[in-house]
Amino acid sequence: MSQTCTLAIDAMGGDHGPAVTVPAALAALRRNSALELVLVGDESALNAALEGVAGHERERLQVRPASQVIGMDEPPAQALRYKKDSSMRVAIDMVRDAAADACVSAGNTGALMATARYVLKTLPGIDRPAICTTIPCRGGRFRMLDLGANVDCTAEHLFQFAIMGAVLVEASGDSRQPRVGLLNLGEEAIKGNDQVKQAAQLLQDSDLHYVGYVEGDSMFRNVADLVVCDGFVGNVALKSSEGVAAMISRYVREEFERNALTRLAGLIALPVLRALRRRLDHRRYNGASLLGLRGVVVKSHGSADVIAFEQAIEKGILEAREGIPARIDARLGQLFAQDAPA
Amino acid sequence: MSQTCTLAIDAMGGDHGPAVTVPAALAALRRNSALELVLVGDESALNAALEGVAGHERERLQVRPASQVIGMDEPPAQALRYKKDSSMRVAIDMVRDAAADACVSAGNTGALMATARYVLKTLPGIDRPAICTTIPCRGGRFRMLDLGANVDCTAEHLFQFAIMGAVLVEASGDSRQPRVGLLNLGEEAIKGNDQVKQAAQLLQDSDLHYVGYVEGDSMFRNVADLVVCDGFVGNVALKSSEGVAAMISRYVREEFERNALTRLAGLIALPVLRALRRRLDHRRYNGASLLGLRGVVVKSHGSADVIAFEQAIEKGILEAREGIPARIDARLGQLFAQDAPA
Repeated sequence: MSQTCTLAIDAMGGDHGPAVTVPAALAALRRNSALELVLVGDESALNAALEGVAGHERERLQVRPASQVIGMDEPPAQALRYKKDSSMRVAIDMVRDAAADACVSAGNTGALMATARYVLKTLPGIDRPAICTTIPCRGGRFRMLDLGANVDCTAEHLFQFAIMGAVLVEASGDSRQPRVGLLNLGEEAIKGNDQVKQAAQLLQDSDLHYVGYVEGDSMFRNVADLVVCDGFVGNVALKSSEGVAAMISRYVREEFERNALTRLAGLIALPVLRALRRRLDHRRYNGASLLGLRGVVVKSHGSADVIAFEQAIEKGILEAREGIPARIDARLGQLFAQDAPA
Repeated sequence: MSQTCTLAIDAMGGDHGPAVTVPAALAALRRNSALELVLVGDESALNAALEGVAGHERERLQVRPASQVIGMDEPPAQALRYKKDSSMRVAIDMVRDAAADACVSAGNTGALMATARYVLKTLPGIDRPAICTTIPCRGGRFRMLDLGANVDCTAEHLFQFAIMGAVLVEASGDSRQPRVGLLNLGEEAIKGNDQVKQAAQLLQDSDLHYVGYVEGDSMFRNVADLVVCDGFVGNVALKSSEGVAAMISRYVREEFERNALTRLAGLIALPVLRALRRRLDHRRYNGASLLGLRGVVVKSHGSADVIAFEQAIEKGILEAREGIPARIDARLGQLFAQDAPA
C-alpha cells in the first residue's frame, strides 16, 4: 500500500464484538504498514482488549467512543432513529466526514444498509445500493449482486447493479473486461421474467462484456466474473450454496468418524482433508461490499472469526485505495453523457 | 403393490433415450410384480432394445409406436403444435385416455409442462401446475416447489403450491402433518416481497402446519418438509445447490488425485469415499412431479442414467397408487367448501 489509508471499524458489531474485531484489526495493521484503524465502540471494553498492545501497530490504532450497540435483530428503522451513537452509526459518520476512507461492520445487515444509505447517500444515477460478494467457483471466483438489499428490482436496477459490480471486478484486478451474466432459470432467450429480459436488452446494448444468461449451476463452472440478480434470488442462491456446502462438510466429517477403521483412514487422509478444507474455507471470501453509496462500506458476516473479519478489512482497504465509489460515479457519468441529447 | 398399475414411459426422451429408458423399465418391472409398462416411441428401436428379453417382465411390457421425438431445446409451443405423434405427447395422451395411470418422461421440461397442461388440464381451483422435487437435507429430505414452471407468482399461487406439495408429502409417508415453510431472505416477518408476505398470511390462516419463513441455508438443516417458492427462486436455489455439490465433489476427487501419496490416502479412504458418494448420490432423488394436473406426470432429469430413471418410474408408481391428483382435488374441495358462503 503506497499511501496511508484509514478505516473505521464497528468494533461492537457481529456475534463476537471486540473478541473478534480487535485481534483482526491488529492482524490487518501488521500486514499493512500504511494502514490506520479507528476502533469504534465501548471505550473501556476496547481499551481493555488493547491492553498490552504496543509498538507500531498500537500507534496506528485509535479508539473512538460510541455508547450504543445495534442488536443483530433490531429493526433498521429503529436503529436509524434511536441509535445515533451506536458503533455502527459513528463508524459510518466518520466516512461521511472524511475522517475514514471506509468502514467495516459485522453488524445487522439491514441496519447497516439503511444507515449507510441515510448518512452517505447514493451516487447520482443510482436508485438503490446493492450488496455484492465474492463466491468461489471452479478454477476461480465470481462476484454476485444483489444479495438481499432489494427484493424487487426493475430492469434499470439490475443494469445499475451490473455497472457497479463490473467496476468492482475491474478494480480488484480479477478481470479487465469482466464477463457479466444475468442469473436466470435457463440459458434460452425466451426464459425468465420481464425484468430479467429487459435487463438483458440493456446489457446487450451497453459497453459491458455481457455474456448472457447464467444458471444457478453454471455460475459455479466459471462462466462469468459477475452475476447480476435481484436481492431475493441472490440471497436465496448464496444461502442455498452455503447450506449445501455446510451439509457436505458435515457428511465428510461424519463418514470419517463412523468407526475406528474410518477414523484411521481419516488420519491417513488428513493432509488431503486439510487441503480440501482450505480450498472450501468460506472465511477467505468474507466481506460484502455495499455498492452505490458515496463512500466505502464493507459488511462482514455476523459470525465471522478473526481470520474472516480480517478479510473484510482487506476488502475495505482495497475499495478505499481503488476509490470504488468515485470509479462507479465516473462510469455512470460516461453513461449519462452518452445518453444526453446532442 | 397390491393392485396393477400401468405407466406410460416416454422411451425416447432425455439425453440417452432407449439406452436408459428400456433397462430402467425392465428393472422397475423386476422390482414391482404388479406393474405394467408401456414404452412409447420408435417401434423398431424399442423392439431392438427388447430383443432377448423374455419372461414375466416382457409380458408386462408393451411397445406403443410414436413417430416423432421432441428435441431437448425445442420451443414448447412448437412441440405442442407440430409434434402430435411424439413419444412424449402419446404418453401423456394415454394418461388422459386412462390407458395409463401415470407417465414418466426425461424429455424437454417446458414441452412436457405445456403438453401435460394442454392435454390433461389443471384441477379445478388450480391456476398453475408446479414442479416439485425431493431434496436431501441433514438427517432427511424435503420437497420444494415450484422449480421453474412459474416465474411470477401471486400469493394465491404460492398457497396453492403449498396445498399440492403437502398432499404429496403426506402421501409419500414422510410426514402426516408436513411442516410447510415459505422460502424467504430472512426469518423475520418484515422481510420479503409482497407476494411472500401475503402468502404467509394465507398459510397462517389455513389448516396446514405452517412453520414460517425458511432461508436458503436453513432448509438444508431439516426445518421443513415442504419449501414453497416461486419458480424463478426455486430453480435458482435447486441449481445453485447442485452446482456447489458438483464443485465440491470435483474438489474431493482432485485433492485425492494430486500425487502418489494422496492417491494412496484415497485408496485407504475408499470405503469412506464410497459411503460419502452414496450419501450424496443425486440419482436417488431423481424424478420431479408436475402437480396440479388431472393426471400423474413425472419428469426425470434429462441426463438421468438407468438408476436415476428407475427412481423417476418409482415416483410415478407411488403417485399413481396414491392417486395424488384426486387427493389434491379433494383437499381443494374441502377448502372451497369452507370458503363458500353459508
